[in-house]
Amino acid sequence: MYTLYYAPSTASLAVHWMLIELGVPFETVKLDLKVARDQDKPAYRALNPAGTVPTLVVDGVPVAETAAILMLLAERHPEAGFAPPPGSPQRGPWLQTMMHLTNTLMPAFRCWFYPAEVADNDAAQAAQGARVMQVWDRMDAQLADGRPFLLGDTLTTADFLLTMLTRWSRNMQRPATAWPHLGAYVNRMRAMPSLREVHAREGLTDWIDG
Amino acid sequence: MYTLYYAPSTASLAVHWMLIELGVPFETVKLDLKVARDQDKPAYRALNPAGTVPTLVVDGVPVAETAAILMLLAERHPEAGFAPPPGSPQRGPWLQTMMHLTNTLMPAFRCWFYPAEVADNDAAQAAQGARVMQVWDRMDAQLADGRPFLLGDTLTTADFLLTMLTRWSRNMQRPATAWPHLGAYVNRMRAMPSLREVHAREGLTDWIDG
Repeated sequence: MYTLYYAPSTASLAVHWMLIELGVPFETVKLDLKVARDQDKPAYRALNPAGTVPTLVVDGVPVAETAAILMLLAERHPEAGFAPPPGSPQRGPWLQTMMHLTNTLMPAFRCWFYPAEVADNDAAQAAQGARVMQVWDRMDAQLADGRPFLLGDTLTTADFLLTMLTRWSRNMQRPATAWPHLGAYVNRMRAMPSLREVHAREGLTDWIDG
Repeated sequence: MYTLYYAPSTASLAVHWMLIELGVPFETVKLDLKVARDQDKPAYRALNPAGTVPTLVVDGVPVAETAAILMLLAERHPEAGFAPPPGSPQRGPWLQTMMHLTNTLMPAFRCWFYPAEVADNDAAQAAQGARVMQVWDRMDAQLADGRPFLLGDTLTTADFLLTMLTRWSRNMQRPATAWPHLGAYVNRMRAMPSLREVHAREGLTDWIDG
């Protein structure tokens, strides 16, 4: 039913984590992006012409884009409640948050990790780091009312995506955990057994214990 | 029911256009982004803390992010068929396409229009222009089989977003219309009465007639 093509510590982690949390059966195919460069091989390009990671094959149909996969999985497993139901007042804000994470926070990280793709100089990278921190400011303010999850009382796809992205800031001068409410949120998420499990399965030992 | 806060020729055009094509009642509030700077006023920031355009107020709930609004409208008006239904094989590819447009094409345009936000030099802007053209390459290949719309035989939210973004390239050295299949697609879309209507309502006279 589900086959996840993933590489440890990349954007595929959010999908890998959500699949574990859902408790649904799935198979995994691990890609070596550095030495074997599996993402460039014809077999993978047939599934994902751009060679991005992850790809989730759903009943034979390959789907790319992390946020798209999370939203699709939430829709296919409504009993988990990882998205507000269509027609509910929270549906718009949930969609808005998913778009913001994927079109603002993720590109800022990409430019920060790979500044040469945009403009290979320190100023460009610093500008992207500032963009990331602006998002932490807003997320921290949103969490300041003590809500357990980003959108309120319920764990949603936005939490899988946001938590993974806070990890990506672990080597920045000021990581996400330095913000008081966001840091407390990250600590709560790091206590989730499924997040600890996906780190174990991907062989990741940093960050998860703070 | 729907109140659209918009500014002519900005990302709000895709939403404005889709509302007209849906044929549903809606009100509009036009924002002056340059002189009055309505997007910075407290009344607007109360709806949209980041001051982005558009905002669509849906039954009293403000929703930002163009792609989110298009997806929400498609879901609220399933009879229009602007999104493949949940559970259909096209659902994953549709979600993937919406994410790609919002997290790759839109940020590349933003950096191209406002290079100072990233790195204020010509090389940075050229890199973003190249990213835009890479997307046109892929879209052109996808349309090469003669399909009428981006995802096949049916008009979807992806067409509202993509067509608006092709317009944004009109002053680039090589606009989207220079690609053979993509150009033919844009010409078909420009014949849609609702696209012509939204241009008229927003007072836009360039591009629509080629």
